[in-house]
Amino acid sequence: KNTNVRISLPAVCFVWQLAMIILFGFFIRYNAESDVHWKQENKNISRSDIENDFYFRYPSFQDVHVMIFVGFGFLMTFLKRYSFGAVGFNLLIAAFGLQWALLMQGWFHSLDPMDGKIKIGVESMINADFCVASCLIAYGAVLGKVSPVQLMVMTLFGVTLYAVEEYIILNLIHARDAGGSMVIHTFGAYYGLSISWMLYRPNLDKRLNGSVYHSDVFAMIGTLFLWMFWPSFNSAISYHGDGQHRAAINTYLSLAATVLTTVAISSLSQKAGKLDMVHIQNSTLAGGVAVGTAAEFMLMPYGSLIVGFCCGIISTLGYIYLTPFMEKYLKIQDTCGIHNLHAMPGVIGGIVGAITAAAASEGVYGKEGLKTVFDFTGKWENMLPTQQGGHQAAGLCVALCFGIGGGILVGCVLRLPIWGDAPDDHCFDDELYWEVPEDEESIPPILEYDNHIRNQAG
Amino acid sequence: KNTNVRISLPAVCFVWQLAMIILFGFFIRYNAESDVHWKQENKNISRSDIENDFYFRYPSFQDVHVMIFVGFGFLMTFLKRYSFGAVGFNLLIAAFGLQWALLMQGWFHSLDPMDGKIKIGVESMINADFCVASCLIAYGAVLGKVSPVQLMVMTLFGVTLYAVEEYIILNLIHARDAGGSMVIHTFGAYYGLSISWMLYRPNLDKRLNGSVYHSDVFAMIGTLFLWMFWPSFNSAISYHGDGQHRAAINTYLSLAATVLTTVAISSLSQKAGKLDMVHIQNSTLAGGVAVGTAAEFMLMPYGSLIVGFCCGIISTLGYIYLTPFMEKYLKIQDTCGIHNLHAMPGVIGGIVGAITAAAASEGVYGKEGLKTVFDFTGKWENMLPTQQGGHQAAGLCVALCFGIGGGILVGCVLRLPIWGDAPDDHCFDDELYWEVPEDEESIPPILEYDNHIRNQAG
Amino acid sequence: KNTNVRISLPAVCFVWQLAMIILFGFFIRYNAESDVHWKQENKNISRSDIENDFYFRYPSFQDVHVMIFVGFGFLMTFLKRYSFGAVGFNLLIAAFGLQWALLMQGWFHSLDPMDGKIKIGVESMINADFCVASCLIAYGAVLGKVSPVQLMVMTLFGVTLYAVEEYIILNLIHARDAGGSMVIHTFGAYYGLSISWMLYRPNLDKRLNGSVYHSDVFAMIGTLFLWMFWPSFNSAISYHGDGQHRAAINTYLSLAATVLTTVAISSLSQKAGKLDMVHIQNSTLAGGVAVGTAAEFMLMPYGSLIVGFCCGIISTLGYIYLTPFMEKYLKIQDTCGIHNLHAMPGVIGGIVGAITAAAASEGVYGKEGLKTVFDFTGKWENMLPTQQGGHQAAGLCVALCFGIGGGILVGCVLRLPIWGDAPDDHCFDDELYWEVPEDEESIPPILEYDNHIRNQAG
Repeated sequence: KNTNVRISLPAVCFVWQLAMIILFGFFIRYNAESDVHWKQENKNISRSDIENDFYFRYPSFQDVHVMIFVGFGFLMTFLKRYSFGAVGFNLLIAAFGLQWALLMQGWFHSLDPMDGKIKIGVESMINADFCVASCLIAYGAVLGKVSPVQLMVMTLFGVTLYAVEEYIILNLIHARDAGGSMVIHTFGAYYGLSISWMLYRPNLDKRLNGSVYHSDVFAMIGTLFLWMFWPSFNSAISYHGDGQHRAAINTYLSLAATVLTTVAISSLSQKAGKLDMVHIQNSTLAGGVAVGTAAEFMLMPYGSLIVGFCCGIISTLGYIYLTPFMEKYLKIQDTCGIHNLHAMPGVIGGIVGAITAAAASEGVYGKEGLKTVFDFTGKWENMLPTQQGGHQAAGLCVALCFGIGGGILVGCVLRLPIWGDAPDDHCFDDELYWEVPEDEESIPPILEYDNHIRNQAG
Repeated sequence: KNTNVRISLPAVCFVWQLAMIILFGFFIRYNAESDVHWKQENKNISRSDIENDFYFRYPSFQDVHVMIFVGFGFLMTFLKRYSFGAVGFNLLIAAFGLQWALLMQGWFHSLDPMDGKIKIGVESMINADFCVASCLIAYGAVLGKVSPVQLMVMTLFGVTLYAVEEYIILNLIHARDAGGSMVIHTFGAYYGLSISWMLYRPNLDKRLNGSVYHSDVFAMIGTLFLWMFWPSFNSAISYHGDGQHRAAINTYLSLAATVLTTVAISSLSQKAGKLDMVHIQNSTLAGGVAVGTAAEFMLMPYGSLIVGFCCGIISTLGYIYLTPFMEKYLKIQDTCGIHNLHAMPGVIGGIVGAITAAAASEGVYGKEGLKTVFDFTGKWENMLPTQQGGHQAAGLCVALCFGIGGGILVGCVLRLPIWGDAPDDHCFDDELYWEVPEDEESIPPILEYDNHIRNQAG
Repeated sequence: KNTNVRISLPAVCFVWQLAMIILFGFFIRYNAESDVHWKQENKNISRSDIENDFYFRYPSFQDVHVMIFVGFGFLMTFLKRYSFGAVGFNLLIAAFGLQWALLMQGWFHSLDPMDGKIKIGVESMINADFCVASCLIAYGAVLGKVSPVQLMVMTLFGVTLYAVEEYIILNLIHARDAGGSMVIHTFGAYYGLSISWMLYRPNLDKRLNGSVYHSDVFAMIGTLFLWMFWPSFNSAISYHGDGQHRAAINTYLSLAATVLTTVAISSLSQKAGKLDMVHIQNSTLAGGVAVGTAAEFMLMPYGSLIVGFCCGIISTLGYIYLTPFMEKYLKIQDTCGIHNLHAMPGVIGGIVGAITAAAASEGVYGKEGLKTVFDFTGKWENMLPTQQGGHQAAGLCVALCFGIGGGILVGCVLRLPIWGDAPDDHCFDDELYWEVPEDEESIPPILEYDNHIRNQAG
């Protein structure tokens, strides 16, 4: 197989980036809160500068940003010889994806009817990062087996599909999904798994599909930044005040519970009770995924703990039993186990959201509270919580369909023999797309020799 | 010794997590600012959403969160073969500890007398993280020598003791301790040192008690995140406005001064003037510990520098002279040197706090200022700064007693032969509790061979 | 050469830190917003606590702080045997530099005429970090070739020069430079390059001037934290509200575009289309540098993309063609390639700023907007945007002159044979100034042996 991407990769990067510039020139402008006229307008109504949405959301945005680039990037560095690809391609596709997401989401959500322009602000940046997250989840399934050009194509279609399904779920169906259990995780995971299924490699060489000691420690950087900042992820676009506050608390608690059950199952699964780093790196995060939809609801602290408790168990069991099963019988090779970390917890999150919404009562929320949390305004004014539960379930189905359907279609495209992907016996190897430095082993002898001399001398 | 924890570890994780869910169900609810009714109430008194405590404290909370999980976790990865245990068990006990802390601290501090429930919000989360910090400090003393089950037990008792001593120091004695020099660091360090003393291993094998090049670089990740975010740690629960502002400035300055004196002493202590990574990784942080209590007082910028200056010297000298002394003569094996990083600077912090409080004058603080900073309200209305100084000193003593006494008691429990701890010749070794990947050295030959072929071909 | 710094390094650290304490004692006090009287004053005018500048800027400050210590520190860990020096000396000189910067910048900018004291707050801390950034950039040029004492001297003079040129550019010339393209990057880079030119080593041993696999991954930690937090860097000291908001958006977009063109050029430049980690680690950041000056202007989203697009190309081409050329013909050895990452993009940023300012119109900004953005107040009330463009260009020239001139002068000082710098054949080697642990290779055989036995037994 020809893995030379010297023409295709630069071409794709240049042309698509130029397209972005042109489209941004036509469509994208600052919104009212980032435009220079805001200050004046503020003075007129004697509003404080601190009420700019920037101060409500920017700290959360930066946390989300860290999750996207360091969190996802380093989580995937666990392979012994694919750390460059993990963290480097992650940066590449996220940087492209967020631009395309600003456009796609803008056309659907924030097109100003007055001048036909998309108005962006800090919330748009968070949403673009969210959209990119779904593509990075999908990358986890095909990690080490695709070329950077294929990843760019995957991202182009992934962002497009995301924007459409998000519009259907949030606007047409009117489901709520603050932390994106359905919109981001369920969609992204099934999108990636379907592509991986389409690109099945029966003779995949597993020699490099594993970790070394230090690559596992690098991966823990990713795990921890995802784990720590997940409360910001789930609360980033919740409504101001108690909405953001509550979403952060729920996520914080759910993740804590997940850690304990993950450790329990991981230890139970081994003869000597030893822990498996793969579980600690991944399953400890499942609680954050599963509490996404319901994070801003009155889930109650113990509710969050229960969600986290269950997800730690299910996700770890998934790594132990389901991943090998899927590879052997369903022909789905899932490098990072995104089925256990994103797909199953995402679906659980959607179900928890539906149940919690359906069970919402005026006793707990108050009349105004129901309106605020579930956005029962405009044409949804007379909606009941039980109905909302149904709409939530419908939203989950849409996410599933878009993920699986879109993944199969894009998988077809990616099977074309023009993308420069790796041969079966050179997967998981940075050598193909990176200038890799000579190995560490060739240096120490000289160094040690020097040390001896110096030690003797000094 | 039997180090199999396949029954005990899962049992402890499951049962304790279930207990948490039940206790949370009975006791824990959202506080007013994270409850859905806040929005409505806000409208009624036309208060801005931005005045939710969330926006005052959440950025600091996230910084503290990073210190707990990445800071403490990676600081302890310096051992050549205990990085999994360092970062993994750190995550485990912190995730458990914060739940238990929410309950314990809640019963003492935020039990609502109306309905008997604990009401939690962002400040509770910060306090829970603080409480966990004291247990992670204790972990530093016994790093590599205890089993994960022992760590869980240590954390259970540590959090309990912490909540009691915190209540005594802050509420009964009415000492102030914004950054927890006494409550967190002094207590946590002596708790850990006493446990380590109780678990003394005369025949400890030191073969793996050291670093390799890259493990030292990993540890610097921990050091830097602790160093950078310490201003947030010390200001996280200070009072709104100038309190948080001043605490951040004082800590920023103190830490800067510590770095220079640490480097100076480290260089002086070696024949060739070379620096020791252990000092840079640890002693550079001592200034943050020592400025904790007085951070929100009018310590003055030069005061902060003086505190940092002294602590860099004392902490580094501790590593050079005291740690070997304590191991040889006092039978205290202190893996991370927490005596130098937390115990001594913590005590200094308590003393600095007492002096600064006693020296506080209406000239500097103003009448209202004294009231705000030292909380001279309610039954403490007529308290004088000099009295407050005495109370601060009393608080320090309580922290010391709880640390030493509690550590000895818990040490007795941990000496029971049922916890699966490591034999003396296998300490500091991840092999005991983790599935460790095969070593890096077994791969490169194949890789290099491939490269040669490819290079010749391409 | 004698590289023993056992006298000089501790002496410099002690004496300078003592000097800082004395100068801080004489000069530095809390400003109004971090002083204890703020609370009372607040009550009097019924202003909310949240309007303390702390809440506007502290989250950005912490992000900048991470860039300085983890960002710059880890970016330079790419060398195979200089990671201790990279991250350790970075911490040392930044910790010293920020104290000296508070004084120098304070004397120029925030000396209170009433009492002759410098009043510091969160903005001073950000500015001190900014000032330090310019010295860390300069460190990049001489990485691995100078002693820690030389670095301290470099920082002392660097901060001093910075404070003067900053005062000239921002106050006397009245140029705007929110993200410091001119003041920080252009100055810092040419300062470092000139020093490197003065310290040219014709016989430099390149054996250790390269990376190994894991050191490249460590460097990516630095890259990513710089990349992610650059929006905070460029918006940290912009004016409240839309100013900060817009600066963040512009930087976010510019950096995204840079990634794509960097990847394109990097791939194009290699026979097999493989990517070079040096480019990904560095050139992807060029867009953040170049958008610094104009970040708070109405650059428009597509304008930011264009800036990023160009800088990715120019910076990567610089690494491929210019760095070798400069070393061979201009005798400038630039270890980190700061000419490509900071110097050229910095100059471009200055030019972009001049053009954007000159092109500013009342149609886009509004009358009030022009006043706010370009600070056309006081004696600059009648200034026109076109004039402002000229002033911007003048500011760029001043930064260049100070960088080159200052660097040559300081380079002369650093050529004195008293600083303990490395001999030509031991550059890029931590052995000289650090106690380096024995190599990893000496451990595994024992470990593996143990494993075999244990596996057979268990």
